Amino acid sequence: MRLSELGEFGLIARLAARFGQGLPPGMVGIGDDCAVIPWDEGTSLLVTTDLLIEGTHFRLGDLSPRDLGHKALAVNLSDIAAMGGVPESAFLGLGLPESTPVEWVEELIDGLGELAAATGTRVLGGDTTRSTAGVVLDLTVLGRAPTAHLKLRAGGRPGDVVAVTTSLGDSAAGLRLLLDQASARPPDEAAAATDELALIRRHVRPHPQLAEGRWLASRPEVHALLDLSDGLDSDLRQILQASSLGATIELDRLPCSAELSRCAARRGWDALPLAATGGEDYGLLLTLAPAAATETARAFAADLGHPLHLIGQLQEAPGLVYRQAGRPVELTDRGFAHF
Amino acid sequence: MRLSELGEFGLIARLAARFGQGLPPGMVGIGDDCAVIPWDEGTSLLVTTDLLIEGTHFRLGDLSPRDLGHKALAVNLSDIAAMGGVPESAFLGLGLPESTPVEWVEELIDGLGELAAATGTRVLGGDTTRSTAGVVLDLTVLGRAPTAHLKLRAGGRPGDVVAVTTSLGDSAAGLRLLLDQASARPPDEAAAATDELALIRRHVRPHPQLAEGRWLASRPEVHALLDLSDGLDSDLRQILQASSLGATIELDRLPCSAELSRCAARRGWDALPLAATGGEDYGLLLTLAPAAATETARAFAADLGHPLHLIGQLQEAPGLVYRQAGRPVELTDRGFAHF
Repeated sequence: MRLSELGEFGLIARLAARFGQGLPPGMVGIGDDCAVIPWDEGTSLLVTTDLLIEGTHFRLGDLSPRDLGHKALAVNLSDIAAMGGVPESAFLGLGLPESTPVEWVEELIDGLGELAAATGTRVLGGDTTRSTAGVVLDLTVLGRAPTAHLKLRAGGRPGDVVAVTTSLGDSAAGLRLLLDQASARPPDEAAAATDELALIRRHVRPHPQLAEGRWLASRPEVHALLDLSDGLDSDLRQILQASSLGATIELDRLPCSAELSRCAARRGWDALPLAATGGEDYGLLLTLAPAAATETARAFAADLGHPLHLIGQLQEAPGLVYRQAGRPVELTDRGFAHF
Repeated sequence: MRLSELGEFGLIARLAARFGQGLPPGMVGIGDDCAVIPWDEGTSLLVTTDLLIEGTHFRLGDLSPRDLGHKALAVNLSDIAAMGGVPESAFLGLGLPESTPVEWVEELIDGLGELAAATGTRVLGGDTTRSTAGVVLDLTVLGRAPTAHLKLRAGGRPGDVVAVTTSLGDSAAGLRLLLDQASARPPDEAAAATDELALIRRHVRPHPQLAEGRWLASRPEVHALLDLSDGLDSDLRQILQASSLGATIELDRLPCSAELSRCAARRGWDALPLAATGGEDYGLLLTLAPAAATETARAFAADLGHPLHLIGQLQEAPGLVYRQAGRPVELTDRGFAHF
């Protein structure tokens, strides 16, 4: 069997089966946003790592080295956010072609260093090496969280309300705009250009929701929490599988930004499938006790300055059901379709 | 300027200058074998990361996936050993071409998992991804060490005896044999084949000296300690630079294995430059108080079952001097030459 048939999730499942046995109490291994290691009475060490490879995760022409440095750290900080943690240190594995200009490397380090400084993350080590395989970046971030606040993806309960902390699909739209760069552009109105630049910026400079993660993790009514990296559909299925539950999502409630709505209208795109499946928004996905949902959303908006969107509900019956105007719809390759 | 002109050490120096400022007491950042983070009264957390890229660090035809998994973990454990630490957890970033057979990945995981189990290292997380750039492995290992035992490379003192814990040059000879595979082989005697297989094995399955590291770190007479990854010449210069000292190395005392000596004689190689500059032996390099050196070497051999080789001395005068039969010699591209 080739790896392409097993898939990334299949490989992770095998690794988790091999290395997940017999962990001591309080330790969490492969399968959640971060590994968790007991630190002291009340505190846990969080560890997360992400490997970014040129040609797989990014094309050098699509983003500046400063963006790339920012993004490599941001995606790891997003994992720390999803555990309600505070980032503390970062370790950078950096593989670079010999012909790389030093200025390019310095800009990359600047992008990473600026986000590190803004979030209190110390860059404490790493490894640099020549690469004959393009640019390779591996970031490992360590953080700490109150053990009592840890919310794992297995924490979902039947009846929980499903919520997200960002608009969905912006990053995927930005990526699509980058990939379509060679194709026909819409009439070059200033408004369209502004919208599209905003979407591309959401893709290349994601904002890790550290304050939101800490706020949500501290609330007992929040049961499961993870970050939106692979897209709502894929990430919600992680909660469902880990919690042995199903969910219903109301498409009418999926938050789409004004930029995405206008860009989709101009370009004739369907925004809903982008919102449901597009990855790399790096907001947070959570489930919370239904009795507390409305009040939590109010308090979240008051404290964090942006809305918590309630978009569906967990249920005992397995499967992920999408509904539109009260009727179930099916997610197909070409978008949502009524049965 | 291109990266090839700045070099890896130049890049690390820039990173250390940027991120090494204002660290709190007890924290060590870029530049030693591991980063050090205070854990609790008396204990420090160690973090090390190594990035291995196909085509730069290994060729798939030269070693089995089991060897590769072993080696990727071993080189990180060697950094933990050089801090006198106990490894605790490992995080694997793994980039693989889609066409990779699943069996190949499983063998790699087996090689890593066997060494992890043998050393009490838990594999707690990682990231797997498709790679269009060949096989990429990034291992991050966390460990713990008694803070009082930490020996940094800046610890060398004038008059210290320089010592190593392994024979030198075996791994470099093994690599040379692998690279020369296409060239003429020596008469295929069984003895030659046995020697050469042993040298190749030292290259593809290095043994991290964790017990040796803990033993040495616990001795107050040991002042500086690091692992032999880049080769004696390069690694000793790290101590000299960090300690602002020079050293004299007696070539007659460099430990060469019987396998290397015989292989070099058969193939007409000069073993001494391999021993002085060949990398990846993954033994330990240390400096220790001269009054204690002989007794420490005796106790080391008695407790660990193999010798501690005393090969030279640190001095105030800068520079690294090699001597042979009492006379200074110069290391050139073609080996050691008398002035």
